[in-house]
Amino acid sequence: MPTNSPLNRKLRMGLVGGGQGAFIGRVHATAAVLDNRAALVAGALSSDVARAKASAPDYDIPADRAYGSYAEMLAGESKRADKIDFVSVATPNHTHFEVAKAFAEAGFHVICDKPMTFNLEQAEELIKVVEKAGVVFAVTHNYTGYPLVRQAREMILSGELGEINAIRSSYIQGWLRTRIEGDNQKQAAWRTDPTKSGIAGCFGDIGTHAYNLGRYMTGLLPKEISAHLKAFVEGRALDDYGTAIIRYDNGAIGTVTASQISHGRENDVSIEIDGTKGSIQWRQEDPNTLTFRQNGQPHKTYTRNGGPYVGAHHASSVRLPGGHPEGFFEAFANVYCAAYDAMAKKAAGESIEMVNTVYPNVYDGVEGMLFITQSVASSKQNGAWLPFHHAKSRR
Amino acid sequence: MPTNSPLNRKLRMGLVGGGQGAFIGRVHATAAVLDNRAALVAGALSSDVARAKASAPDYDIPADRAYGSYAEMLAGESKRADKIDFVSVATPNHTHFEVAKAFAEAGFHVICDKPMTFNLEQAEELIKVVEKAGVVFAVTHNYTGYPLVRQAREMILSGELGEINAIRSSYIQGWLRTRIEGDNQKQAAWRTDPTKSGIAGCFGDIGTHAYNLGRYMTGLLPKEISAHLKAFVEGRALDDYGTAIIRYDNGAIGTVTASQISHGRENDVSIEIDGTKGSIQWRQEDPNTLTFRQNGQPHKTYTRNGGPYVGAHHASSVRLPGGHPEGFFEAFANVYCAAYDAMAKKAAGESIEMVNTVYPNVYDGVEGMLFITQSVASSKQNGAWLPFHHAKSRR
Amino acid sequence: MPTNSPLNRKLRMGLVGGGQGAFIGRVHATAAVLDNRAALVAGALSSDVARAKASAPDYDIPADRAYGSYAEMLAGESKRADKIDFVSVATPNHTHFEVAKAFAEAGFHVICDKPMTFNLEQAEELIKVVEKAGVVFAVTHNYTGYPLVRQAREMILSGELGEINAIRSSYIQGWLRTRIEGDNQKQAAWRTDPTKSGIAGCFGDIGTHAYNLGRYMTGLLPKEISAHLKAFVEGRALDDYGTAIIRYDNGAIGTVTASQISHGRENDVSIEIDGTKGSIQWRQEDPNTLTFRQNGQPHKTYTRNGGPYVGAHHASSVRLPGGHPEGFFEAFANVYCAAYDAMAKKAAGESIEMVNTVYPNVYDGVEGMLFITQSVASSKQNGAWLPFHHAKSRR
Amino acid sequence: MPTNSPLNRKLRMGLVGGGQGAFIGRVHATAAVLDNRAALVAGALSSDVARAKASAPDYDIPADRAYGSYAEMLAGESKRADKIDFVSVATPNHTHFEVAKAFAEAGFHVICDKPMTFNLEQAEELIKVVEKAGVVFAVTHNYTGYPLVRQAREMILSGELGEINAIRSSYIQGWLRTRIEGDNQKQAAWRTDPTKSGIAGCFGDIGTHAYNLGRYMTGLLPKEISAHLKAFVEGRALDDYGTAIIRYDNGAIGTVTASQISHGRENDVSIEIDGTKGSIQWRQEDPNTLTFRQNGQPHKTYTRNGGPYVGAHHASSVRLPGGHPEGFFEAFANVYCAAYDAMAKKAAGESIEMVNTVYPNVYDGVEGMLFITQSVASSKQNGAWLPFHHAKSRR
Repeated sequence: MPTNSPLNRKLRMGLVGGGQGAFIGRVHATAAVLDNRAALVAGALSSDVARAKASAPDYDIPADRAYGSYAEMLAGESKRADKIDFVSVATPNHTHFEVAKAFAEAGFHVICDKPMTFNLEQAEELIKVVEKAGVVFAVTHNYTGYPLVRQAREMILSGELGEINAIRSSYIQGWLRTRIEGDNQKQAAWRTDPTKSGIAGCFGDIGTHAYNLGRYMTGLLPKEISAHLKAFVEGRALDDYGTAIIRYDNGAIGTVTASQISHGRENDVSIEIDGTKGSIQWRQEDPNTLTFRQNGQPHKTYTRNGGPYVGAHHASSVRLPGGHPEGFFEAFANVYCAAYDAMAKKAAGESIEMVNTVYPNVYDGVEGMLFITQSVASSKQNGAWLPFHHAKSRR
Repeated sequence: MPTNSPLNRKLRMGLVGGGQGAFIGRVHATAAVLDNRAALVAGALSSDVARAKASAPDYDIPADRAYGSYAEMLAGESKRADKIDFVSVATPNHTHFEVAKAFAEAGFHVICDKPMTFNLEQAEELIKVVEKAGVVFAVTHNYTGYPLVRQAREMILSGELGEINAIRSSYIQGWLRTRIEGDNQKQAAWRTDPTKSGIAGCFGDIGTHAYNLGRYMTGLLPKEISAHLKAFVEGRALDDYGTAIIRYDNGAIGTVTASQISHGRENDVSIEIDGTKGSIQWRQEDPNTLTFRQNGQPHKTYTRNGGPYVGAHHASSVRLPGGHPEGFFEAFANVYCAAYDAMAKKAAGESIEMVNTVYPNVYDGVEGMLFITQSVASSKQNGAWLPFHHAKSRR
Repeated sequence: MPTNSPLNRKLRMGLVGGGQGAFIGRVHATAAVLDNRAALVAGALSSDVARAKASAPDYDIPADRAYGSYAEMLAGESKRADKIDFVSVATPNHTHFEVAKAFAEAGFHVICDKPMTFNLEQAEELIKVVEKAGVVFAVTHNYTGYPLVRQAREMILSGELGEINAIRSSYIQGWLRTRIEGDNQKQAAWRTDPTKSGIAGCFGDIGTHAYNLGRYMTGLLPKEISAHLKAFVEGRALDDYGTAIIRYDNGAIGTVTASQISHGRENDVSIEIDGTKGSIQWRQEDPNTLTFRQNGQPHKTYTRNGGPYVGAHHASSVRLPGGHPEGFFEAFANVYCAAYDAMAKKAAGESIEMVNTVYPNVYDGVEGMLFITQSVASSKQNGAWLPFHHAKSRR
Repeated sequence: MPTNSPLNRKLRMGLVGGGQGAFIGRVHATAAVLDNRAALVAGALSSDVARAKASAPDYDIPADRAYGSYAEMLAGESKRADKIDFVSVATPNHTHFEVAKAFAEAGFHVICDKPMTFNLEQAEELIKVVEKAGVVFAVTHNYTGYPLVRQAREMILSGELGEINAIRSSYIQGWLRTRIEGDNQKQAAWRTDPTKSGIAGCFGDIGTHAYNLGRYMTGLLPKEISAHLKAFVEGRALDDYGTAIIRYDNGAIGTVTASQISHGRENDVSIEIDGTKGSIQWRQEDPNTLTFRQNGQPHKTYTRNGGPYVGAHHASSVRLPGGHPEGFFEAFANVYCAAYDAMAKKAAGESIEMVNTVYPNVYDGVEGMLFITQSVASSKQNGAWLPFHHAKSRR
């Protein structure tokens, strides 16, 4: 169980988005309080005022803190002595920026869904806002929260795999195999709508996760990217399939493939990383194990909470004995918990790490937007190699 | 997301046990509120008064409802207008009975950890209490909460597997491979202590789960049992390994094996069931799939939330799209949710199913005690076949 | 590739059984020559003279060595200068004894299918014959030929798992789920016919394999056995399901389960062994890996030909680089090769190991018959514990 | 068991290559005779005359047919009444062409190891030779011989997956992780030597297999290719890692990744194919199953010889009941058997399919060379898209 905050009280959370009919808002609300380190106390749950208020009881948000808009919430909470400590942004992509910016500028910590913004410009702007405000800002690249993902990261950063040569990651789904966005399926509708999702479909929604996973685990800096995106389903406005190659600064090669049109495939995020001293393999659909291999040695399967070999960040990310499966909610909660740790440090007046954080941060968010931007651009230029690096990235 | 209760408010939960240093109390508290259908409002968290009170803030239990004993809680809550609706009993085995009995008699619903009681007599007594009180009584045979376990149950009860011939279940662990109970390991200490655990060690702690899983899935009635238990670790007072054969009423054969001494094995509960029309296979460590086989057909893998084929109880037990792993907490929460459904019906004045409930109930609890009692007795008689049936069992 | 024999020529093989319509004879013929260490030169392929002769060309057996009966073959070959070195007995169970005995007595080496004889008396008699003749006698408990099975054996015999406490093995099939023996299915017909198969069906056909696997890997001596056999399919004369418990000399507990009525299951032989220092797990349907576990350590997967860690008997049992699957034929061939090594030693005048051989031998064969005999007897006595040990067993 | 040839005798095989110290020659020899449809009767086993003759006894080749060179063998055999029917070419890559050409021109059937030739020009030349001679010419893209690969092919060609959109295949090894070619490791030495292997290392050796597998299964015609190859190991002359994107005629996207530098990975050839009606997944290291998925349906696992659902080419590629693993040798033998079927037809004066054969043929061989040639060229041009199609390809 993660240790409680030095605040000596639970953190107070505000939620933007998550009204009736939404999916990810409930995930945020569930994950945020899983470890009893925070309480959801305020919300602007919908852009529709009536629905916003009607949804509040589902979250036990009292009427006086059930706001009709994020702006109203910002104003209302700012005045309170028991104001929220942080806001979670779980709205459609195109509104992340304004919400996140407003709260960060006002000094609230922010947990923002991904993609962080609608476009790259907004993302760059957000860096400035966050740096100036000095708030904790996490982006829910939630797969980084899996204990074995953190184990892999710790092993790689400590050199156990040697120099990294290759990263192969993919995210394979099948749910958009047919044009269900035409059937009034809400999730499908906004994700395939450029005015809501941004310039990329599949690559923005899930390709970024596959890319981010490799970056998080290795800290390798990208240099350039070549991508090919495609919409296979007739009439679809955004890509539903894509593949990219990334050249890293150190000469490593990365490949990222994402699909929404692979029959029967669910949420198959997986990654393989090759280093000069060892290789690893991990897959979300079997998240509680990590395979580590070295030539001439038996393959080693690390399990969640499996023994004294677990790294520090792995160890702080588990709640149950090994063999009792933890899953998606727990990983999501682990992202929150890492952000809570930073919030607590902040509250205690300590300085906090900004770039190489355990949680995905604003720099990861901007790199995600850069990934999308350059992938789409490269694809339009028949896979031309485009620069892909950001001065402030995690490393 | 399970629908909310017709109560139109969250259920109020009291917790007995779960004080600092405990494990399962936290699991109950987390699972109970996962779906926001209940709130933990009162507790008697330890038999040590000071620790009971000191532990309350960890659960956000206000000081005035942090009781020094379960008796005090019962008295205190009974007087309140906003009294708790149910109590969760997460104390060591030897105290389950008195706590559960007291609350049930007073008309509170009860969620009781397993084994339900310290011995069979108490279990039988509890049936009478529960029947008289008419309260909802659930026993946390938590593996029954996995969506694919419920899928298997629905398939079998509806006849998709035909007549059931064989059940093979096992629960394999390794953590008690050495005599860690001598090393001040709290979990190991009480589980290997006959004064705390009862007459069985491994077979009571985990063998019952393996047995219960088959019963829950099939509804087959047991007839007689032959068992062999053994303590392999020197100096251990209770069994750490065992195997039993069960003859069912319809002629089916069941085998149950449980181990706490299998190196590196974590919480490997698994089951295979053979029917005249099909067979299934499920394993906790890969809980989000169920394999269904029929001669001459491709093997079929059902996934959690995988499509229109999911049964009603499976469907009401999921929170996330297929492929996003759910695990132990969610399964535990599903047991709670099924009990909540019954509590809500009760509150609405409707009659409720008592025996063949979706959640494991007091009759399952008593059958669990009978399993333990007759297994130990059979083992002492060199595996003699002993009667194993209970007039009121689930079927 | 196994080294060639010091004989400096290929061994000459005679085959009894294997005529048109047979299955296992072709397996013997294929496996025996896989590594080019033997050539099939003579045969008595059927008890039907015409079919015996007609089948010879399928095996490239020249007409003058295509005999009409095993007796004719024995007489014919005995007279030749280039006589066969060994005979493979691939006839139905009830004729193994007379054939094997006749050839062994005449000084030919014998590879005999299992179960070795029709009953225990024949098996005991065969020990005497073999000991007197001093020939190499192998019984095709072919699963012992898998490289990772040999790896497990080497690890256990060298003490890597410590003292062995438990063996759980099973062999699960589904092909006899319905009464196909009534449909003129030849394989099903003889295997369910007591006059051809002997006193046991499922337990004789496949239960013995599951039992033998544990014995081969551990060398533990059995002491007593309790078994429950059953025919689930209406009208079937022999058991199609069964489970047994074995107590070993050192206090270890073994469980053996075998089924022919599990829908969709193919040839799922699997085993788990627990020792005080480690545990292993292996499964025929994924034969090229072996899992080794120790508390607190990552689980280790050994692969076929996977590295310097492979034991000597594992190393001499592989033909291909790791990752290129080897399977059933190769394992079968490995049993032959181990027998060839012994034949070569014999030919070179060296003494050979008789009991703890790498190949399953006549003592394993007799123990298999004892297993069947006592299982059936115990089952008839409601699972009574019966003595189960043989003075000359492997250890 | 594949049926025997209408020739009414075994086919006579000659082997070029395979002398002492070789690997693949023994595989050819073993596979070719596995089903007793051919006999190895002549050989030119090494380019070193002494070694060629010394190696003959290992294969039971009589001294008078143990030739000192392939030319000598061609001359010698051509004169015989019982001349060989076909030759297997298992020499290093750079000599395939001259051997294959010479024998084909002389009217012998040819089984040629892959890559078929040293460069594209030779490959094109070979097409002409084969077409003119009208002989059966197979290239051992042996992975096409796995029964479940053939099952996938039959399902796709018959439309069960609908229109194909995406193919993802890879071949991941680790054995060349360090510069073992400097350590006198013969296999490593020639495979990393451009004068022996040709212009590609990893991509020629194993990338072609991964590519070919998708082509064989789908029959989709490639249009253009973009590739990136790299040597990660210092001082290595040829690529040891690479990835390519292929655009197919119908708009489908293919990705091929090959690695020789992934620690602990053995021979992990795998493929995923997405169609509008279904998707499949297969992996060599678990070759006896094939997964077929459709949205909303349970995932289906097809097993080798698993039931009436197996396709005709699958059915003719199996020897053992399902669950008894078949592996690499059997798949290799299946390529031979399909070629034997064609040879038999030829001998019977029937016309044979030349392009869309069950066995990989000379057109597949030339496409493999084109794949290598264009991959290397594209990689040198920073991944430029290059045309990739051949007028005579399989479709």
